[in-house]
Amino acid sequence: MSVALASLQEMARKLRRHSLVSTAEAGSGHPTTCLSCAEIMSVLFFDEMRWDPQDPSGRDADVLVLSKGHAAPILWAALKEAGAIDDDLLSLRQDGSPLEGHPTPNSPWVRVATGSLGQGLSAAAGMALGRKLDRTPARVYALLGDGEAAEGSVWEAAQFASYFKLDNLCALVDVNRLGQSGPTMYQHDLGVYEARFRAFGFEVAVVDGHDVAALRAAFERARACSGKPFAVVARTLKGKGVSFIEDKDGWHGKPLKKGEELERALAELGPAEIELRVTARRYPAADPPTAIASSVRPAYKLGQEVATREAYGTALAALGRLDTRVVALDGDTKNSTFSEKLKAGAPERFVEAFIAEQNMVGVALGLASEGKIPFASTFACFLTRAYDFIRMAAYSQPPHLVLVGSHAGVSIGEDGPSQMALEDLAMMRAILGSTVLYPSDAVSAERLTEEAARTGGIVYIRTSRPKTPVIYAHDERFPVGGSKTPRRSERDVVTVVSAGVTLFEALRAADRLAGEGLAVRVIDLYSVKPLDEATLRRAAAETRAIVTVEDHSVCGGLGEAVAGVLAGTTRVEILGVRECPRSATPTELLRRHGLDADAIVAAVRRVLA
Amino acid sequence: MSVALASLQEMARKLRRHSLVSTAEAGSGHPTTCLSCAEIMSVLFFDEMRWDPQDPSGRDADVLVLSKGHAAPILWAALKEAGAIDDDLLSLRQDGSPLEGHPTPNSPWVRVATGSLGQGLSAAAGMALGRKLDRTPARVYALLGDGEAAEGSVWEAAQFASYFKLDNLCALVDVNRLGQSGPTMYQHDLGVYEARFRAFGFEVAVVDGHDVAALRAAFERARACSGKPFAVVARTLKGKGVSFIEDKDGWHGKPLKKGEELERALAELGPAEIELRVTARRYPAADPPTAIASSVRPAYKLGQEVATREAYGTALAALGRLDTRVVALDGDTKNSTFSEKLKAGAPERFVEAFIAEQNMVGVALGLASEGKIPFASTFACFLTRAYDFIRMAAYSQPPHLVLVGSHAGVSIGEDGPSQMALEDLAMMRAILGSTVLYPSDAVSAERLTEEAARTGGIVYIRTSRPKTPVIYAHDERFPVGGSKTPRRSERDVVTVVSAGVTLFEALRAADRLAGEGLAVRVIDLYSVKPLDEATLRRAAAETRAIVTVEDHSVCGGLGEAVAGVLAGTTRVEILGVRECPRSATPTELLRRHGLDADAIVAAVRRVLA
Repeated sequence: MSVALASLQEMARKLRRHSLVSTAEAGSGHPTTCLSCAEIMSVLFFDEMRWDPQDPSGRDADVLVLSKGHAAPILWAALKEAGAIDDDLLSLRQDGSPLEGHPTPNSPWVRVATGSLGQGLSAAAGMALGRKLDRTPARVYALLGDGEAAEGSVWEAAQFASYFKLDNLCALVDVNRLGQSGPTMYQHDLGVYEARFRAFGFEVAVVDGHDVAALRAAFERARACSGKPFAVVARTLKGKGVSFIEDKDGWHGKPLKKGEELERALAELGPAEIELRVTARRYPAADPPTAIASSVRPAYKLGQEVATREAYGTALAALGRLDTRVVALDGDTKNSTFSEKLKAGAPERFVEAFIAEQNMVGVALGLASEGKIPFASTFACFLTRAYDFIRMAAYSQPPHLVLVGSHAGVSIGEDGPSQMALEDLAMMRAILGSTVLYPSDAVSAERLTEEAARTGGIVYIRTSRPKTPVIYAHDERFPVGGSKTPRRSERDVVTVVSAGVTLFEALRAADRLAGEGLAVRVIDLYSVKPLDEATLRRAAAETRAIVTVEDHSVCGGLGEAVAGVLAGTTRVEILGVRECPRSATPTELLRRHGLDADAIVAAVRRVLA
Repeated sequence: MSVALASLQEMARKLRRHSLVSTAEAGSGHPTTCLSCAEIMSVLFFDEMRWDPQDPSGRDADVLVLSKGHAAPILWAALKEAGAIDDDLLSLRQDGSPLEGHPTPNSPWVRVATGSLGQGLSAAAGMALGRKLDRTPARVYALLGDGEAAEGSVWEAAQFASYFKLDNLCALVDVNRLGQSGPTMYQHDLGVYEARFRAFGFEVAVVDGHDVAALRAAFERARACSGKPFAVVARTLKGKGVSFIEDKDGWHGKPLKKGEELERALAELGPAEIELRVTARRYPAADPPTAIASSVRPAYKLGQEVATREAYGTALAALGRLDTRVVALDGDTKNSTFSEKLKAGAPERFVEAFIAEQNMVGVALGLASEGKIPFASTFACFLTRAYDFIRMAAYSQPPHLVLVGSHAGVSIGEDGPSQMALEDLAMMRAILGSTVLYPSDAVSAERLTEEAARTGGIVYIRTSRPKTPVIYAHDERFPVGGSKTPRRSERDVVTVVSAGVTLFEALRAADRLAGEGLAVRVIDLYSVKPLDEATLRRAAAETRAIVTVEDHSVCGGLGEAVAGVLAGTTRVEILGVRECPRSATPTELLRRHGLDADAIVAAVRRVLA
């Protein structure tokens, strides 16, 4: 019982009218990109998708990811017409309105924030994969612009979707020919997109994107397609339906002026009185997730040498055994990050995302929105590849999303600077609302892995390559926002604050200075964000100065975090990497960059001088 | 007069032997990935490329970018055999040796650092474009692994190369089937790579990568190919030539053990006594670049309202008029960043790189290595997309590479968080050796644009969307590492340090407090890195506290930079963004996030309380 084509066409017209009016009222926004996809949105929301306008939560309903996020006004218009929201469309872009300039989860209908182009297909692929894992037949759609198809991440997502046979995923490309500042690379050469999607493993339909019958037929083909994702490549016109903006350059991101200009456009579009009721159509409910019962049980001897990256793998495998929501993602480094330990016990929840870190993070975000607890791990330096995705993931407010970066710092040794993460703490701290954890020994690594699974939003765990001795008892707890003080006395004159491999240099320095009668406090700042401000302030009050040490750039990491909190209360001397490292042994590099026990001893003497 | 095929084959064997021996001696490294590309390297260096082993500098010679940087040992071996270097191959990965674990410019033969996969083709495309601009016929080769073809950036580079008809570029894909932790996505299905490179506009040859005759024939086709870049997709075996590692999983990044294991492998390979002399073959020299004579001449009235992004565009156009080395790159935001101003005057040096920021930065790096002064601009938030490329660009030590990010911070207003850069200062400060500039008015924006062109390495300029009043005279100078003090008196009780749009909030706050009899010093910290430590220390000594204000995350930005320097000398109160912003007007958002004059007044009162 499908909707009449004429009704869908009229609804497209109505959505166009809403888009023009709301952006004109806001005085900003992107009406022309809304107009190019009006038929696509009309057919999707009022005919194709099986969804329930009363319930944005369901994993048992089809979902759209609006990758071309600047078309937000038409998304709000479609939701409003479908009865899914009752917000005033004229509140678009106003302070406090959920109808933001680009989609964010401030609207319950938005699962992932978009607006940085080229990211939606990865998130959609993650959702589609999550539904496959849950054996839920509900489908996932992603609407892309042609301009954003220039982003390599789109092709990472495409290859991922075909590799994992995500036939519940449908990509829609709104080829409207015009970018922000001029024509797109291929304008209306739709064959380019067709050839590329085919080369990346998709079944493809090329259609006139303003022809509702053609769109409906393409969606039917997509539904029937098995074993492959589907792409609908749609030829459209930006500004379609209004003569003075249609297919015209120079109108990106420009609203019409209220009054004569807007009225002229609305007159050209013609009236649209149609009301379409969306019948709630849902799939059988997904199985509810099993309750979290996870609890790691570290089993090490004190002094045993274990790399934190390996302890992470052990904890991840334990969590995965106990909680089926845990999914691990890898960028072809699983034997180095030790995420392969989960693969051994739960291969169906181990996702080899290959060397494509942007897509790995995007897929993790999509999985998170399906109720999974994704752990995406690779070398910490390669997470820099995904920084824009991480930033957008934060704005997507996922319930859980854990990123784990191994091989942090110069202490990786001979591989050289390309493999050393020296910016990851700065990068992850700057993400609003993030949690940044940096374990030093195997017990804390296991405990923090579990903490990460229990913490909301973006959590980053930094692990190290070298083996380090176990210094904490099995039952020690490591709450987010806490710290440990492995060296402490009433006579402490200086406090050394560190985490990770350099904590052991700090302990060595403290022991050496103790031999000379100088008591040094050592704080293990395993929670780099949030910081244990109380303990730091106490140390600042009780000792004469603070020395921080980190295997990371001196800018934006642990040292500046401490300085930012303590500034004014005590002297803070920051030890970190200041110059480009090169290949050498870990020991040589810690010495060269002033991060070893000798350097710490010297710094302590300096601040006491 | 080509080299005998048997000689090339024997040289391949010799390069294999070197790769096994040097990594065994180092006790780390990636021998098997060297063995898969031995014939490719032999044919390239000893037959195909026209180069001069005595001179690594020339733009008039063919060049190879080793995108699969972990194959560095065979690069060193080829250079050594060609007489281009005299370093001991057994010094591989040792402290101080230029023969690092992955290629870096510590060897004069390396123009761009590699080792983060998927980046080499962009740099190579930049070099190829630079040679087209210089009308130099010398060619550029990029050797990729199959694993790294999963990186979307490879496809950004491919589409760029075909869009710009870079027929002087040849991509080589060493399809050795095995990644680090298991088989690659497509193993030996070479048709996938063939179809994708064709879909992305390349002419393609599929060959047996261990057949020197086939390789030579493919290179001949590549040379003859006009109007398109060329890709040689080569079927190879990882560990080729040594039975117990050939095509075997589990041998990535593992050297053979010195002694019996190594000897057995060398015996299997057989002896290789060949000596091949590379005859220096060069192209006609490129025109020497014109001498820099650039000097911007800001022409504004005091108080005139001009956005720093627009002043940047004006200065860029002026520099481009005066110095033909200046090239602008854009990510389809030229009408927002105002880089389009250069396009108007020098369209041949304006590169529309479309919405593919990773490739934009990689191309800029390649252009830099050809003697250009590239300015790559887009919204600052989208530079997060290219963070891994920026990191690797820093390790490449370019003479000049300027990145310009516009639309920084919440002050962009209604577009919402996806378009707001709130992490860029942290991201760029953490890059070792970087320079970070943040102008507030049009005069400083123009002057800093010129400073950037004169500064070595990675320079970042942060520009703002809103118009701000001109506060500096035309002849004012803004040296890197300096600052300005637009409000200062003998009676200053507090110093407010800021830059960009919030500087004007600071000035307003100071004026308001002055009206109440409280003198507040205001420092314009336009050089966020390096910092003007002397001026900050003086302010710390002369006033009772420091308040910093920035339209950026509180983590890793201007405030922590100041706190890191001043910690212990005075109280530092950091105002910055702490919570996820949403759509609203710039004024509303500066207020909401505590960055406006009211918030600064309150902070000043707080630190005095």
